[in-house]
Amino acid sequence: METVVQKFGGTSVGTVERIQNAARRVVETLKKGKKVVVVSSAMAGETDSLIDLAHSVNEFPPEREMDMLLATGEQKAISLLSMAINKLGYPAVSLCGWQIPIITDDVHTKARISRIGIQRILNLLSEGYVPVVAGFQGVTDDWEITTLGRGGSDTTAVALASALGADCEIYTDVTGVFTADPRIVPGAKKLKVVSYEEMLELSSLGAKVMQIRSVEFAAKHGVRIHVRSSFEEEEGTWILPEEEVMEKVVVRGITLDTKESRITVVRVPDRPGIAATLFKPLGEAHIVVDMIVQNVSHDGYTDMSFTVSRNDAKKAEEIVRKTAQEIGAKEVIRDDRVAKVSIVGLGMRSSYGTAARMFEVLSRRGINIMAISTSEIRISCLIDEKYGELAVRELHEAFIEDGEEIKIGDDREGQEGS
Amino acid sequence: METVVQKFGGTSVGTVERIQNAARRVVETLKKGKKVVVVSSAMAGETDSLIDLAHSVNEFPPEREMDMLLATGEQKAISLLSMAINKLGYPAVSLCGWQIPIITDDVHTKARISRIGIQRILNLLSEGYVPVVAGFQGVTDDWEITTLGRGGSDTTAVALASALGADCEIYTDVTGVFTADPRIVPGAKKLKVVSYEEMLELSSLGAKVMQIRSVEFAAKHGVRIHVRSSFEEEEGTWILPEEEVMEKVVVRGITLDTKESRITVVRVPDRPGIAATLFKPLGEAHIVVDMIVQNVSHDGYTDMSFTVSRNDAKKAEEIVRKTAQEIGAKEVIRDDRVAKVSIVGLGMRSSYGTAARMFEVLSRRGINIMAISTSEIRISCLIDEKYGELAVRELHEAFIEDGEEIKIGDDREGQEGS
Repeated sequence: METVVQKFGGTSVGTVERIQNAARRVVETLKKGKKVVVVSSAMAGETDSLIDLAHSVNEFPPEREMDMLLATGEQKAISLLSMAINKLGYPAVSLCGWQIPIITDDVHTKARISRIGIQRILNLLSEGYVPVVAGFQGVTDDWEITTLGRGGSDTTAVALASALGADCEIYTDVTGVFTADPRIVPGAKKLKVVSYEEMLELSSLGAKVMQIRSVEFAAKHGVRIHVRSSFEEEEGTWILPEEEVMEKVVVRGITLDTKESRITVVRVPDRPGIAATLFKPLGEAHIVVDMIVQNVSHDGYTDMSFTVSRNDAKKAEEIVRKTAQEIGAKEVIRDDRVAKVSIVGLGMRSSYGTAARMFEVLSRRGINIMAISTSEIRISCLIDEKYGELAVRELHEAFIEDGEEIKIGDDREGQEGS
Repeated sequence: METVVQKFGGTSVGTVERIQNAARRVVETLKKGKKVVVVSSAMAGETDSLIDLAHSVNEFPPEREMDMLLATGEQKAISLLSMAINKLGYPAVSLCGWQIPIITDDVHTKARISRIGIQRILNLLSEGYVPVVAGFQGVTDDWEITTLGRGGSDTTAVALASALGADCEIYTDVTGVFTADPRIVPGAKKLKVVSYEEMLELSSLGAKVMQIRSVEFAAKHGVRIHVRSSFEEEEGTWILPEEEVMEKVVVRGITLDTKESRITVVRVPDRPGIAATLFKPLGEAHIVVDMIVQNVSHDGYTDMSFTVSRNDAKKAEEIVRKTAQEIGAKEVIRDDRVAKVSIVGLGMRSSYGTAARMFEVLSRRGINIMAISTSEIRISCLIDEKYGELAVRELHEAFIEDGEEIKIGDDREGQEGS
């Protein structure tokens, strides 16, 4: 009998009615003759209110205690969801991370799963029970409760699916993964399929459908994921190994990230090692630098620009200002009004001229490009924030709406293992 | 170094400010050079709102799932309390029942503790940590979460104190155990000491300071308990073995129970076995019968009265009505407007005339006695509910305010082991 892991996100169990709805989705699947393992997040808003409560008691709560506190959110949700499934006449049993067990390392608030004992779940399944598993939480070898970081329930679901050799359904409040944010591009289309690698680029660029780590986990273990709405019946988006994504398009999706800031160091003396001097203190402060641009040198001086997360921007500016003084740069300028627009697609690997076409689309609208970065399947441009949404719409029209003709087959070069 | 178990009830951790206050009480004790093990209930109102939530999902939630749900209340409280103690500069570590472990039987929602592993707590204490233990919850040998029933956190605290050879402080929202309910008797006095046996009679009669089972546990294992307010500094009431209660008074306290109903079966044919016929079906329905009165027989007929918990009254009436028909009794009358007033004191064992004096006090005020029951250290009278508070005040005046002269020394007869 086929087993499927069904994961419900916070909005899908956010009220009593939604918990009952989730229970009905589980029962529908049972009625199709499948075995179901359920994974649930905390009820929407619960985790945030627990965090607020913690900070009202202690601004710097020990992370171990934070995990003890946050783990209650999922425990509450799974017991209620289990009650709702029982009410529909199907026996269900809720399980905390430590009861399975889902063993993790001891890095509190962002632990990683090291192994899962699935015997108890297999026993329950064979006895006809629906195991309802707490997402987001695990336990160390020393019996300490850990949590997996924001969105960690996705990772729990994917890891369980992997351990059980099952497919993984992610029930959420959107109907799937789209070619662009539908709030920006009304004509954005739901994707039938997307490869792990594309999904990773789409996730990290702002399409917040799934936790990045869960997609990495799925890619590593070949877990087939189906992202779909818990409120509608329609099929969602399958996230699959590249070899199962039959239709390779040059551009699968367009993303917009408005959560970065640009910092420019003006008139840096251009001598070897200057970049290292500038960036080392940032690394030591655990600030991740994203796009870096170094201008052509004039008279022994150059300008250096880079982007960081907007949360880190002020701290980064202070650090860089100090270094700039030491190395005799002229000034440091921070710009929070930037946006990173990206196109993502497996087909880029075997398609030429995509970057040039992207630049052309942007320049046609008079949008200046401040920085460029690329991966094998992604091209990103940093632009003025006020043109962000316009850029997404233009690129969507050029590459997705009008771009069908450059759809390519399975004749790509440079295929990578996933 | 002396170890003390400090247990905080729901009102003592009911808000962020109260959690911080509880943490200060713990730190004050640490500063006196003692080691402290903390036990906490769920924040006031939390358990009730979880129960409501459960019932809105499923009117008859499986008890196992109920325990999963309710256990989150204490887990939330201990992590917050631990954060608050850490904030004051003292390292604290919260622990769920399964992390200690507190092993129980598998009777969900009213489990009993079978054993406690204290090695982890001893290790934490020796490393200078304050263990903050979740009250009310345990774990079975099969890794299932259980709860100990309403007020179960008291039992957790007493059981831990017993295992650690420590005294047990119960922090609550009253300053101790009183000679009567101060809302009824403004002149009620706080008791300095009370014996386990007296406390059990006082608890079961309505003085809701501690869970009965926790006092039974303390009595069995000789745990010294100090009930006190978490909001005031003054000493509370010590609950002690009888041999440590130096001052034996005839009447320690007066209680009023308005949660019983009386059922009367009129004109029962008075033949052998009739009482058994009447009460057997009640026992089979798990209804506890308290006071029983059988009138003197006339013409081969008698009247039988008994009391049951008011919650069971309607069900009991139905059952008895059926039996009454079968045995040919005339009618069944239910009276919900009754009250049980009781006097409790160790000294009754060696004092004569106490019952007569009680009846005299009541009759002086024209209060009719419907039924009487006694134990070695208690006399209870069933009266009309409207005279309940008056009776308590009159008995308090007679036995406690004016009763000091009959205080007796250590010359009692019939001492029982505890």
